[in-house]
Amino acid sequence: MNAKQLKSYIDAAKPRFEEMLAELVETPSISADPQYSGDVHRSAKLAAQFFKLLGAKVRIIQTGGYPVVSGGWTIDSRFPTVTIYNHLDVQPAQELQWRHSPFSFRKNGDIYYGRGTTDDKGPAITALLSAQYAAEAGLPINVQFLWECEEEIGSPNFGDAFKQKGLIPKPNSVLVSDTIWISRTRPGIPYGLRGMLGARLCLQTGQNDVHSGVTGGAARNPLAELCAVAAACADARTGRVKIPGFYNAVIPPSRSELQGFLASEFRVTHFKKTHGLRAILTEDPADLLKRIWARPTFEVHGLLGGYTGPGIKTVIPGQAELKVSMRLVPDQKPQQILKLLRDFVAKINPSVRVQGEGMLHPYKSSITSQYANAVREALKEGFGKNPVFIREGGSIGAIPKLAKQWNVPIVFLGLSLPEHGYHAPNEQFDWGQAKGGMRAFVSYFSKLANMS
Amino acid sequence: MNAKQLKSYIDAAKPRFEEMLAELVETPSISADPQYSGDVHRSAKLAAQFFKLLGAKVRIIQTGGYPVVSGGWTIDSRFPTVTIYNHLDVQPAQELQWRHSPFSFRKNGDIYYGRGTTDDKGPAITALLSAQYAAEAGLPINVQFLWECEEEIGSPNFGDAFKQKGLIPKPNSVLVSDTIWISRTRPGIPYGLRGMLGARLCLQTGQNDVHSGVTGGAARNPLAELCAVAAACADARTGRVKIPGFYNAVIPPSRSELQGFLASEFRVTHFKKTHGLRAILTEDPADLLKRIWARPTFEVHGLLGGYTGPGIKTVIPGQAELKVSMRLVPDQKPQQILKLLRDFVAKINPSVRVQGEGMLHPYKSSITSQYANAVREALKEGFGKNPVFIREGGSIGAIPKLAKQWNVPIVFLGLSLPEHGYHAPNEQFDWGQAKGGMRAFVSYFSKLANMS
Repeated sequence: MNAKQLKSYIDAAKPRFEEMLAELVETPSISADPQYSGDVHRSAKLAAQFFKLLGAKVRIIQTGGYPVVSGGWTIDSRFPTVTIYNHLDVQPAQELQWRHSPFSFRKNGDIYYGRGTTDDKGPAITALLSAQYAAEAGLPINVQFLWECEEEIGSPNFGDAFKQKGLIPKPNSVLVSDTIWISRTRPGIPYGLRGMLGARLCLQTGQNDVHSGVTGGAARNPLAELCAVAAACADARTGRVKIPGFYNAVIPPSRSELQGFLASEFRVTHFKKTHGLRAILTEDPADLLKRIWARPTFEVHGLLGGYTGPGIKTVIPGQAELKVSMRLVPDQKPQQILKLLRDFVAKINPSVRVQGEGMLHPYKSSITSQYANAVREALKEGFGKNPVFIREGGSIGAIPKLAKQWNVPIVFLGLSLPEHGYHAPNEQFDWGQAKGGMRAFVSYFSKLANMS
Repeated sequence: MNAKQLKSYIDAAKPRFEEMLAELVETPSISADPQYSGDVHRSAKLAAQFFKLLGAKVRIIQTGGYPVVSGGWTIDSRFPTVTIYNHLDVQPAQELQWRHSPFSFRKNGDIYYGRGTTDDKGPAITALLSAQYAAEAGLPINVQFLWECEEEIGSPNFGDAFKQKGLIPKPNSVLVSDTIWISRTRPGIPYGLRGMLGARLCLQTGQNDVHSGVTGGAARNPLAELCAVAAACADARTGRVKIPGFYNAVIPPSRSELQGFLASEFRVTHFKKTHGLRAILTEDPADLLKRIWARPTFEVHGLLGGYTGPGIKTVIPGQAELKVSMRLVPDQKPQQILKLLRDFVAKINPSVRVQGEGMLHPYKSSITSQYANAVREALKEGFGKNPVFIREGGSIGAIPKLAKQWNVPIVFLGLSLPEHGYHAPNEQFDWGQAKGGMRAFVSYFSKLANMS
């Protein structure tokens, strides 16, 4: 690897990086909201244009939902192939705290603002430009990409892309770039992801909204009944899940894993500040990291129904829907947890219909493989800082699916920082992370090329 | 009273009744929605024009909110004075089930459709025309009216109208025409109203929405915590309120009151059908009537915060607000109940802020007074059917205020039927109830005139 050549490539790539990021951010590819389905499809087409512009081959693979963009540079079939996973879809952006329109790209010095800048459009373009460099520099490696458009909704149709044999080349390893460090000064390499199970708990007790004066005392109140179900499922003041059997399959983290967690430069005060949390369920760092990375949760995300405007309207709605999800850890199985939830809800309130909504398996990989070592060294070279192995509390639905599909090593090279505001208002990415990221990717490609 | 003369007056009054009702219905006087404030004021001006047109004196009295229309016929100060209470404001009409525009008046035979036809514009005009007849026929009685424009929002400024001394003449008794029978074949005379206490329970745990993967397990979830508070305040499956001391002041209905309830021709199946209820908390008629008329309630009306769009978004919001209200019965006092709620919530979750939102005292009057007897006989004469004494589960904020202001007997002569759809889509009134109502009002005036 020629450091000088790479530096001048990166410097020259900056305007192109910013243009591509702007175009992608201004395509509001919200996979959760059907109103934006045109934009999700447009984001895939835009990505395909980028691949072609950079000299890569590309194909948009249709699924039962949103497409998958598959492309890259296959230089020689005798070279090792790495497939980099990113996603093009983004979270909704209705938060009132946005200081400017979330889907208009803004640049302030080397900071880039807009929904999707850090999750995951910025890292995706960083990886793509790094691969173009590798191809131009003649590194003996094939870099392929899989960019999906349903990550934020749990990748329900991702598996479809593999149904037509031969469309997506099988690599020797997978690199995932969709994760967050703990601190700007300490690159974090996740080796575990939580899984997820979403559910909508629906209850219909009447045809219409009724009046609490005329019918109150006789009419069932589906909002109140669903509040009771939520309270029965988990103790909100401690986080303890009360669904019988919920914790049975949980493997607690080992002492050495916990020691690794604590080496991540995680600071409770910083965590609270970054996420704007006034009070949290524990102030102990080891307990906190265990809770967010290695323990399952039960969360209420919203209660649909009734009246939520200004003041109060004394309505008893005919129906209501409680939106919940559970983060799962190895070896919890989403199907089994859904059954436990169904059984429990059926017992405490048989009128409530439990509708599973997204299932993601938890994932855990090796931290001692040569791939894990290569990522560690590449990040050190890219950023000049010693990385640590951590876990992620979030889920990437495609990863357990890729693991099952290909059975090849999967490692993580993420570039996002806590202050970038994953899923939050005023989401941002920065050129520092893109630049260091390009150096790290190219370093990783070199190590892969020399591996076998 | 000359029956023939009254009959020809009523027959002649029909077109005028329909014109006035149409004009009022087509003035969308929604007090809950600030967008319609111009229409609420217009409805008061329109009413004042009606008074003048019929030869009555009238005055629009401004308050800190919407005005009160005060007017009528004072024939001779030696005659007894009765003040009839109605309201001009209406509920919002956003229900999808409306078969035509709720604010365009429609007539189908003797049925009149539109928001406000039965609650309370139809009964108001019925009473007004009856009073004109009494004045023209020379009955020795003064009939005054108080038409307010804030009933549907709990009459927060109604008391203001009495601040300027002498503007509103003090009567010897009050007649309220804003209530519903149980069945078309059995006129119902309410003698009790439930009170109400609204509250917003607010909880802020963070600055922003955060991500359940990144922070879940450590972040407090205000939605889940408020669900737990709701579940602790009342058992949704039984309706039992669990706030300590909540039932202390409740006076249970007597056996003879309960027997009166059961004589009202109330049918559980009809109640369920009318309100579109699939399942209810009790199928026993006596228990049901006790619950809706003579027992207090705790209802959840909505939970604001998080995500309520399609599917699921795994967000933990920084704040949430639970909207609740309690219907109260004699002798519960809203201020005391608010204190009990505050104390209980402070104990189970000290971070939750309880914001009182509207207070209406419950009300109960005599069923053996000469006024109550006069209403019973008047309704029997007007409709040819034996009335029964019942209660109302709803609240009319102005009534306890009038009781306190004047300390005179207050009785109820309502004309609405369950099938008229109070607060519901396709609200209607009918000429049969207006015609019988005019006979009943005039009969009541005669009895008052002969009373002392």
